[in-house]
Amino acid sequence: MNITTLPSNGPQTKPLKVFRAFTPRLRIIPLGGNGEIGKNMMIYEYGDDIIIVDCGIMFPRGEMLGIDFIIPNIAYLEERKDKIRGIVFTHGHEDHIGAIPYIWPKLQAPIFATKLTAGFIEAKMTEFGQQPNIRVVTAGDKIQLGVFKIEFIPFSHTFLDDVGLAINTPEGMVVHIADFKLDPQKLESQKVIEKLAQMGEQGVKCLLLESTNVEYKGTPVSESVVHDTISAIFKRAKGRLIVTSFASSLDRIQGVLNSAARTHKKVAISGRSMDKAINIAMNLGYLKVPRGILVDLRRIEHIPDNQLIILCTGSQGEEYSALVRMASGEHKQVKIKKGDTVVISASAIPGNERTISDTVNNLFKEGADVFYGSEAQRIHSSGHAKRDELQLVIEKVKPEYFIPIHGEYRHLVLHTRLAESLNVKEGNAVVLEDGQIFEIQSGTGRIANEKTDASYVLVDGLGVGDVGNIVLRDRQAMAKDGIFVVILTVDHENGKIVTSPDIISRGFIYMREREDLVYKARQEVKRMFTRHNEKYPANWDFIKKAIRQEMGEFLYKETERRPMIIPVIIEV
Amino acid sequence: MNITTLPSNGPQTKPLKVFRAFTPRLRIIPLGGNGEIGKNMMIYEYGDDIIIVDCGIMFPRGEMLGIDFIIPNIAYLEERKDKIRGIVFTHGHEDHIGAIPYIWPKLQAPIFATKLTAGFIEAKMTEFGQQPNIRVVTAGDKIQLGVFKIEFIPFSHTFLDDVGLAINTPEGMVVHIADFKLDPQKLESQKVIEKLAQMGEQGVKCLLLESTNVEYKGTPVSESVVHDTISAIFKRAKGRLIVTSFASSLDRIQGVLNSAARTHKKVAISGRSMDKAINIAMNLGYLKVPRGILVDLRRIEHIPDNQLIILCTGSQGEEYSALVRMASGEHKQVKIKKGDTVVISASAIPGNERTISDTVNNLFKEGADVFYGSEAQRIHSSGHAKRDELQLVIEKVKPEYFIPIHGEYRHLVLHTRLAESLNVKEGNAVVLEDGQIFEIQSGTGRIANEKTDASYVLVDGLGVGDVGNIVLRDRQAMAKDGIFVVILTVDHENGKIVTSPDIISRGFIYMREREDLVYKARQEVKRMFTRHNEKYPANWDFIKKAIRQEMGEFLYKETERRPMIIPVIIEV
Repeated sequence: MNITTLPSNGPQTKPLKVFRAFTPRLRIIPLGGNGEIGKNMMIYEYGDDIIIVDCGIMFPRGEMLGIDFIIPNIAYLEERKDKIRGIVFTHGHEDHIGAIPYIWPKLQAPIFATKLTAGFIEAKMTEFGQQPNIRVVTAGDKIQLGVFKIEFIPFSHTFLDDVGLAINTPEGMVVHIADFKLDPQKLESQKVIEKLAQMGEQGVKCLLLESTNVEYKGTPVSESVVHDTISAIFKRAKGRLIVTSFASSLDRIQGVLNSAARTHKKVAISGRSMDKAINIAMNLGYLKVPRGILVDLRRIEHIPDNQLIILCTGSQGEEYSALVRMASGEHKQVKIKKGDTVVISASAIPGNERTISDTVNNLFKEGADVFYGSEAQRIHSSGHAKRDELQLVIEKVKPEYFIPIHGEYRHLVLHTRLAESLNVKEGNAVVLEDGQIFEIQSGTGRIANEKTDASYVLVDGLGVGDVGNIVLRDRQAMAKDGIFVVILTVDHENGKIVTSPDIISRGFIYMREREDLVYKARQEVKRMFTRHNEKYPANWDFIKKAIRQEMGEFLYKETERRPMIIPVIIEV
Repeated sequence: MNITTLPSNGPQTKPLKVFRAFTPRLRIIPLGGNGEIGKNMMIYEYGDDIIIVDCGIMFPRGEMLGIDFIIPNIAYLEERKDKIRGIVFTHGHEDHIGAIPYIWPKLQAPIFATKLTAGFIEAKMTEFGQQPNIRVVTAGDKIQLGVFKIEFIPFSHTFLDDVGLAINTPEGMVVHIADFKLDPQKLESQKVIEKLAQMGEQGVKCLLLESTNVEYKGTPVSESVVHDTISAIFKRAKGRLIVTSFASSLDRIQGVLNSAARTHKKVAISGRSMDKAINIAMNLGYLKVPRGILVDLRRIEHIPDNQLIILCTGSQGEEYSALVRMASGEHKQVKIKKGDTVVISASAIPGNERTISDTVNNLFKEGADVFYGSEAQRIHSSGHAKRDELQLVIEKVKPEYFIPIHGEYRHLVLHTRLAESLNVKEGNAVVLEDGQIFEIQSGTGRIANEKTDASYVLVDGLGVGDVGNIVLRDRQAMAKDGIFVVILTVDHENGKIVTSPDIISRGFIYMREREDLVYKARQEVKRMFTRHNEKYPANWDFIKKAIRQEMGEFLYKETERRPMIIPVIIEV
């Protein structure tokens, strides 16, 4: 390891060890995205300067019952608030910007983003009554934040105006590439590759690269192929066209608008997030809407079926989304009928397969013809680079160190293997998990022994971080077998039961059909209470614990279910 | 429509309409599998004869909280118990045999199955203390059940000894093909195709064909390719090999055993269902276990790592399965270590993607190298025919009517379209949903107006069918935001609250951290009670309803959560 030593004319008394501890180092700390898909957030720290890259949310796993979403834990940053020079964004998807309204009030740092991303961030923060000062940057721009000099590099993605970051640090160049693909049909991609090669020649200390699609060979279908497929469907369709995609996939939406113009159709929008995204993009000039093409959804009955396109939300089968309401017959303006053609131009976010399938089934039942199935059908193109493109980037950038980002553990492992199979030295491609710290000091990188807290912060209604393991475990238990509340009213003078025990149960059995069981349980609990109260009079904690245990055994024997048992003793 | 009329010398007075109602007809009624993947069960009825084909379970959907599995509703059959001539099985997978212990006691009909399927059925029923008389049949056999003459046709599938049925009925030949594929590398497949062509030449009235893979083009990877891939992994591996597959995929298991023998390795088994399946198959001669190759799992420490294969359960990431326990470090005998190679030779059953991913992530974390990803990696082959094979079958059988089975609604639709694009007349390929009745009378088929009850019967612990919508809705509500129980003890003489209201909450907030909220809620509930009790003294039902409503609003305002509120009033 190279140690910066003092010049020979300086004081020689200070022991090297102490001095060494103060040698500044570059710290790279993922607070999200390294070990899961979502809540992407990365810290770069050097001396007194910190910059943050992205600040996203993640959708809860199935067992996180009732949770709305998850945000990164920013304890590390709150302790170092004064050092934060800025929050820099790569693009405007929820898994990159979604947590900003929760985190910004605590950090108050300036925000840097490209125009469209800034538009999405601003809309989001305004909903929370926040008025941040967002500095708009353009691809190609360079900004200085503390010791960090950042250049914004344009990348293709399903979100327009996506950028990667070339971060010049005192420890050398760090390249941070979040969501991207290299659409070979786009001119810019060639330029980006040249840029990467150029940086590679100049020397890149560390590359951080997204890992979402590292399991898949090849490259995504080109966006222009998707547009062609959708156009072909438009031409063949005899009735109405209903198209859904991610609201922020403006490229796709532009394609639909263009196809509509070419085939002389009108377009109506359904769904709040689609409305919002289109408005932002139109206002900022990112979406070119042919004149007179948009119609109000409430006026579509005046338009012949074969001239109408409805662009709507619901590509993930989200409850209450426009397409799901159409599929279930609950949409106010749009009733699906025979002759309708539905195009689901999106792939399933893992976990949404079931709701999407349900939606497709229901649409077929209502008589629609449905195009779905994403890449294989060429009606969707993933926004994320696959192996061939990841390989190309690594080969061009030729980093000394490689840190995969945006992936579950297996993605990170596969991605380090890919890098080491190319030009990254064995041991220099590192799996860095959330909260772990990668330090580069005097040219040498290693994972630090200490860790930061990167535990999940759960958002549920107004509560941020107040739902923890106990509340979740209770929800899981009640979800499985329900609850069984036993209320005993006891005379506080003689410890005798005053009234027959009250039993309240939900989600366990249908009580009206099992009065026999309720009756038996009531007898049992009286017996349990009397027995334990004789032994340990008025030791309510002990008695409740015993009843919980014994009643559990009784009910399991009767039903093979384990409801949550809540004994209550009320003294009167 | 052709109507059988009386001979001219018979009585001419009876109106044709009445007589027509008595003309026997063939009824085809799916009780499961037509509108979902799983719980396959089909009724064939003609006059006084009924045969049942298969009798499976289905795994619950995510929102069916706490449910173990779903079985078909047999109300229609219970009313016609005396007509049932037999229950015929196509093969021994759970979605075809799993419900038999629940249904057989109610129907008591003779069971017909091939040897291996019979072995699996018997093992299952024995666990329930049932001793049915199973008649073992062999592919090629013909049996007569009432008017039905059934021939068993051998098919390839991931379950050995799989058969399709050629059912000769008074309305012509009906061909019922459940799970199958036509592995081109297997000699038998050629014979089967010839047999189908021969039946097609003789005339097939109706074909029922599985639809599982109708969305996928091409054909599954050949089983022999899978065996080659696994063998290659075995040869490269330096340490232990841990292989998981479906326990009933005996072909795959045979492949592993053969590879083990060729590479001079020992095989240990871990997991109850794997143990059971291998035992049944060995005893019945379906699995050839090379002498001396099996070792006891408790003795594996005596075997060098590079000579050991562990064959285990857990290919779906099932809780408590062997592989999942290994991945989480909870397996007694097997601790994953660097150098281990894990092969997951199975594809994800929809809904299991998350648990499988978790398992893969954990195995990587423990240091193992993991091969997963099923067909694309050629380490698994689907047991179900894809479009090319479905097309071949339809073309050979040339049915007059076509009824897709084993699929969600969209699969059934796509399958009818495929059939009509080939040689099935438009309108003769019908989407028949569970409970609908397809009638063939005097040569003509149509869907009847009446329907049978094919609603889901949920199994939860010992309860069969006792968990209905109310219990499920309660579980869903509690899963989302928990419960909030308010207990008021009231003097029955003056209607005054005796003690401070008790509040019990689970899964809503962490009460210890929100004592302020609990305190406020207690004040609120006292106020609510007093106000309503003054207006409607002792009208407990009304007062409870009002408290439920108002407390709900109060808590929502405070937390934006909607726990289930349970007011309890106890009079003392």
